[in-house]
Amino acid sequence: MPAGARDKTTIPRLDEAAMEAARLRWAGRAKPPGALGALEGLAVQLAGVTGNCPPPVIERPHVALFAGDHGVVLDGASAWPQEVTAAMVATIASGGAAINALARTVGAEVTVVDVGVATDLGGLLAEGSAVVDRRVRSGTASIVSEPAMTRAEAAEAIEVGVAQASALIEAGADCLIGGEMGIGNTTPSVALIAACTGADPAELTGPGAGEPAGGLAHKRSLIEAALERASLPGPSDDLDGTELVAELGGLEIAALAGFWTEAAARRVPFVVDGVISLASLCVADQLAPGTAARAVAGHRSTEPAASISLDHLGLHPLLDLDLRLGEGTGATLAVPLLQASARALADMADLPGA
Amino acid sequence: MPAGARDKTTIPRLDEAAMEAARLRWAGRAKPPGALGALEGLAVQLAGVTGNCPPPVIERPHVALFAGDHGVVLDGASAWPQEVTAAMVATIASGGAAINALARTVGAEVTVVDVGVATDLGGLLAEGSAVVDRRVRSGTASIVSEPAMTRAEAAEAIEVGVAQASALIEAGADCLIGGEMGIGNTTPSVALIAACTGADPAELTGPGAGEPAGGLAHKRSLIEAALERASLPGPSDDLDGTELVAELGGLEIAALAGFWTEAAARRVPFVVDGVISLASLCVADQLAPGTAARAVAGHRSTEPAASISLDHLGLHPLLDLDLRLGEGTGATLAVPLLQASARALADMADLPGA
Repeated sequence: MPAGARDKTTIPRLDEAAMEAARLRWAGRAKPPGALGALEGLAVQLAGVTGNCPPPVIERPHVALFAGDHGVVLDGASAWPQEVTAAMVATIASGGAAINALARTVGAEVTVVDVGVATDLGGLLAEGSAVVDRRVRSGTASIVSEPAMTRAEAAEAIEVGVAQASALIEAGADCLIGGEMGIGNTTPSVALIAACTGADPAELTGPGAGEPAGGLAHKRSLIEAALERASLPGPSDDLDGTELVAELGGLEIAALAGFWTEAAARRVPFVVDGVISLASLCVADQLAPGTAARAVAGHRSTEPAASISLDHLGLHPLLDLDLRLGEGTGATLAVPLLQASARALADMADLPGA
Repeated sequence: MPAGARDKTTIPRLDEAAMEAARLRWAGRAKPPGALGALEGLAVQLAGVTGNCPPPVIERPHVALFAGDHGVVLDGASAWPQEVTAAMVATIASGGAAINALARTVGAEVTVVDVGVATDLGGLLAEGSAVVDRRVRSGTASIVSEPAMTRAEAAEAIEVGVAQASALIEAGADCLIGGEMGIGNTTPSVALIAACTGADPAELTGPGAGEPAGGLAHKRSLIEAALERASLPGPSDDLDGTELVAELGGLEIAALAGFWTEAAARRVPFVVDGVISLASLCVADQLAPGTAARAVAGHRSTEPAASISLDHLGLHPLLDLDLRLGEGTGATLAVPLLQASARALADMADLPGA
């Protein structure tokens, strides 16, 4: 086992006293016990994450959207060429993507970070532009034939996410949403989820955002070939997150993993959603055990790997709207529910007669 | 069949041209086809409701919360006495109920209307107070032994809802949310849903917000007795909505039914949620056929009658959060999804290369 496995970050446990205070506070609110359903458990979790009861109502949610490309696309993992990643980065930077519209709706800001796009982004990276240039390398190698990146590159991409989370929190963000853009990135995500959960890739593989170029069976065979090549040890608490994401990952997946660990370490609520987001959370929980317990699951993706990794991580999504877009859209749509749960716990009157 | 059945209000059909324009517009947005899942169909429906593509983004949602009491509570339909209705009206008027916290989260205003509370509300009804006094009678008679109210009272309560919707729309509300407060009101609601759908009351009856005083079997027997007493004709398009709600209803249910018909007639989006809301929509669709096709279902209640009436009305709820509180909480939480769907359709850039 490489060195990384021996220095895992320690994530503070959820604050049990704050959670118990939240449960007690719910019990005295002006409503029948449990009548606010999932909102009640959500506010309890937010109390545990922030260490406050009632937890503060989120006022400055921020979406950090990491973009990267995937060598496995050249093997037919996606219906679209890698160039679409760069085109979508441009669309997001101009405010015209779905995530921009959804973020505006919930009052969130959006930052796009190029951590590994394959194509030249040209003027988008100019001083003062909307895209943050943190490119570690221009796309991954195909995970079918070699590791996605070196261990050093993986560590650097993870650090991009850590630094981004840290900077946003320093600037006042009180809820972190991670998004991603990367043509073909459900393929490495499913491979990572297979490695972390031990589930059969045949069961995990879905079409992603669009039918893969070579069909679903071909996508599945790519994932099986990558897992065989990497020959990682079976799922265990000792899996080395950096090694895992270097072997099977993507650069945006590594960055997201770092992003989650930093949000967790800083006790700031964060929201995950689809299969890429969940793959990165699996990696994050290997880098820094305890990260997943602090995650709020915003949305249940239709991809089979999403439900299997949600179960593995012990998460129950708030929304189920058949989204399959990525970009952090499912997580962003859940933000008003986090706000509503905290506000209800804070503002509701005592039970009449109490 | 009484006269009411012969002068049903005509609701304009959904605007097919606007809906087709919305479908075409989605097809050209910068995302894979269908990737925004339920948000896409939602924006299409909002286009059909408002007759505009893209539909306007909701800016002034308003919750009208109708309160009423139920004689059947004296027969053991609820765990709580009727006085709790008045206490909760006071809590809502002071801003301390769940609905107030949720409405603040989504930027909605709340109006509470006493259409049939049994208890004296005293100072709450003073000039300039937070509660609108439109009491038609002080609670219903027990539906087990006699009609809930006279036909004239039912018509008056329906008109309270119509006038409320009309006034809110005139004042600028662009999305109507109906809420209700009435101890025991799942009992008349299940009876109404049984009458409208033909489903077996045994299948429809759930515990409501809290275990009924005499247990679930007793609640079911009250509903069966009420249906037998009323001996209404079987479900059909010719059921007379006014008669229905006079026999089995509640005053707040009648008001909500009127509220929905007016929102529908005025082409303003409206959001329904739990079993009382759906019972009133069943009545509304009898008063004014075509009303239900314009409803957005905000949340799936855990009550069995909710799922059965949703199927009957052809509605697919956006949220499923195990809420069982009423007050319009489930509908209110869905408002950001309506906003997000319309904003995405309006703001998203063209598909790259299109």
